Amino acid sequence: MERILIDQIQENDGKKVLIKGRVLNMRNLGNIVFLIIQDYTGAIQVVFDKNTEAKTGDAVAIEGTAKKEIRSKYGFEIQGEKLEIVSNITEDLPFDLAKNDLNLNLSTLLDYRTLSLRHPKVQAIFKLYDILLKGYEITMREEKFTEIKTPKILGAATEGGANFFKVKYFDKEAALAQSPQFYKQIMVGVFERVFEIGPAFRAEPHFTTRHVNEYISLDAEAGFIKDFYDVVDILNRVIKKVFSIIEKEGKQYLDTHNIKISEVPDQIPRVKLAEIKKIIKEKYNYSIPEAIDIDPEGERLAGKYAKENFNSDFIFITHYPWSEKPFYTMPCEENPEETCGFDLLFKGLEIATGSQRIHAYKQLIENMEKKKIKPNGMEFYLDIFKYAMPPHGGWGIGSERLIQQILELGSIKEAILFPRDVKRLVP
Amino acid sequence: MERILIDQIQENDGKKVLIKGRVLNMRNLGNIVFLIIQDYTGAIQVVFDKNTEAKTGDAVAIEGTAKKEIRSKYGFEIQGEKLEIVSNITEDLPFDLAKNDLNLNLSTLLDYRTLSLRHPKVQAIFKLYDILLKGYEITMREEKFTEIKTPKILGAATEGGANFFKVKYFDKEAALAQSPQFYKQIMVGVFERVFEIGPAFRAEPHFTTRHVNEYISLDAEAGFIKDFYDVVDILNRVIKKVFSIIEKEGKQYLDTHNIKISEVPDQIPRVKLAEIKKIIKEKYNYSIPEAIDIDPEGERLAGKYAKENFNSDFIFITHYPWSEKPFYTMPCEENPEETCGFDLLFKGLEIATGSQRIHAYKQLIENMEKKKIKPNGMEFYLDIFKYAMPPHGGWGIGSERLIQQILELGSIKEAILFPRDVKRLVP
Repeated sequence: MERILIDQIQENDGKKVLIKGRVLNMRNLGNIVFLIIQDYTGAIQVVFDKNTEAKTGDAVAIEGTAKKEIRSKYGFEIQGEKLEIVSNITEDLPFDLAKNDLNLNLSTLLDYRTLSLRHPKVQAIFKLYDILLKGYEITMREEKFTEIKTPKILGAATEGGANFFKVKYFDKEAALAQSPQFYKQIMVGVFERVFEIGPAFRAEPHFTTRHVNEYISLDAEAGFIKDFYDVVDILNRVIKKVFSIIEKEGKQYLDTHNIKISEVPDQIPRVKLAEIKKIIKEKYNYSIPEAIDIDPEGERLAGKYAKENFNSDFIFITHYPWSEKPFYTMPCEENPEETCGFDLLFKGLEIATGSQRIHAYKQLIENMEKKKIKPNGMEFYLDIFKYAMPPHGGWGIGSERLIQQILELGSIKEAILFPRDVKRLVP
Repeated sequence: MERILIDQIQENDGKKVLIKGRVLNMRNLGNIVFLIIQDYTGAIQVVFDKNTEAKTGDAVAIEGTAKKEIRSKYGFEIQGEKLEIVSNITEDLPFDLAKNDLNLNLSTLLDYRTLSLRHPKVQAIFKLYDILLKGYEITMREEKFTEIKTPKILGAATEGGANFFKVKYFDKEAALAQSPQFYKQIMVGVFERVFEIGPAFRAEPHFTTRHVNEYISLDAEAGFIKDFYDVVDILNRVIKKVFSIIEKEGKQYLDTHNIKISEVPDQIPRVKLAEIKKIIKEKYNYSIPEAIDIDPEGERLAGKYAKENFNSDFIFITHYPWSEKPFYTMPCEENPEETCGFDLLFKGLEIATGSQRIHAYKQLIENMEKKKIKPNGMEFYLDIFKYAMPPHGGWGIGSERLIQQILELGSIKEAILFPRDVKRLVP
């Protein structure tokens, strides 16, 4: 007999079927046993009118007859006839996966990650993550971007930055990529529009709910832009399309978390950083410290402002100061103390950052000198600007932060299968 | 005026258009100038009846009138009216990108990678790579696999193996993932079917045409398999679908390399390793050394055999010896000296490797003891087998090798944007 998947039960009403999956829960009333069986397409109740040998957690194969059952929350159930244990648990589960909520603290949730991932509510997070990846892949191709894969082992700590993880690379010292920045810019000279989905590594000793040391960045870079608002426009459109795909295909997983997905405006509000600082001071009486561009509380209030004034969960903050942005960021023509750089906030948290980049060799070298950055090891990148790079810009999206914010999870680590932080390298 | 892309010229016959792109080539006949302009959708000839300031390599914007031109290989051309230099080259290109072939040796090709990538024939390689990624993403979802992203920084050098790159991770020592093996198996317990596209790092000091130290692995793992032929069947189907997508969407790039894509049989021939060794000895009088499973010459001849006897560019070699396969590989029931492990060869080169895995805790531990592998640091992985893992198996495909073999490139490094080998960390 051929196995059917649980989401095919409906089409098999009244028929004899074979299903395979895991026993998520069971109730034994003596002469009648109720099993909830879960496979990767859903769950269903199976009723046996005799005892079975199965235990919660076992992997089983069940033959029985599918039938409509309006009293069941699944709409259907299976009258079980034969049960085979395909693989049995040999140790009790450390928690009850059948409860509506695991109610574990974050550190326990992650210590037992290999098992907590089996909980339906945790699974839902990563089903949505799968749809996010799919949505980005599809949308970027619709926008005529070419998918690229660039190296994660770099010859030198680039971008003039610290916070690189060091790798022993044969007899050399290498570093792990913090972003595909240089490579995606180089690729603008090749394909004009490129995107990459790949890991980024940051050796920053953070202990926050929104930082990890390894994450998946959704990058893009586009050439022949008129100005940096072109980049903002494309990102706006991409986010809108991706959200519509998540809404359409992820409904059941959003429901599991009682989340209604945010509407993405056709034109997400765009406010200059200097302006939003003023607004936050005036409206919410909060002063963002002078020395920094924006702090977490400032981001939260900027999000609040966007919601209250534009009914938008999103807001672009633009024109970040020259002093805070990397050397390749295009300074503003009107005011060289500001840049054509932006962040995208979603529910009061930065989820993407981007900018127009400098594309003329001379300007780039001058900007590096102003920032006192040495070209050592970056020559391969700098040289490309001698060869007619078009005006260009792009972004990086923190994929896990996006899921964190969609589902309003307490920590970004809940949105990563096996997160890496200062203390956590296992599992 | 709104820019149109070069692949939209046809729809604009007789109209005034604005295009943007790079000057790939130019001929100046005094009172008439021919420019070949390339954007990310194609190339077209532009004719000016006066001199222009553009040089080969410049990024330009051109206004003119689109018209049919049967004498042009592009089918259309543009009668140029206005040319604006968007960004100009300030240094001469080191080679002529307009030639049909770059004819550079591999090391020069890679030293000048940021520019050699602009050659149409090199671009074609990475357009096909983009389509390969797309094909795999789409096909795996059609097969109901969930896309996952697993960590690339690992807490310990796992799989009992050497050849890990070491990373300084705060006050700990960590290692770069050689494969997502443990994590994708763990995820079988969560989603039953998972796939991952991500980097894999191998610290092996190879100097061959088919090895690099960082590559993109197309991984998959599936649960509730009947036996390892289930895995072989799914992989067979996936390769067939992916190739049909590459054939359909990549025709122009295949043509650029004069390649007719291989037909993928519905059932790729499957031969046991012991059997193919015999065949190679008898048919081609070549003896694969006893001590190893199969060598490159053996693979080449196995490919030749598949072509001559089954008219197939593909062949599965199965039942690799227990002694050669990792500890998690399922031994054969009939003969424990052999495993349920296989390789897929394409045109005489291994492009994928896979197996059924051991899913019972006791058997796994016993197999490790037999192989004298210590569990240190792998407990998080081993423990999962106490919790009813279903029979499962999967594969890893070397994505760049697949492109290398499709296009019959001399080295895998030609199929990687910025390859990493023992000597090469830059660009």
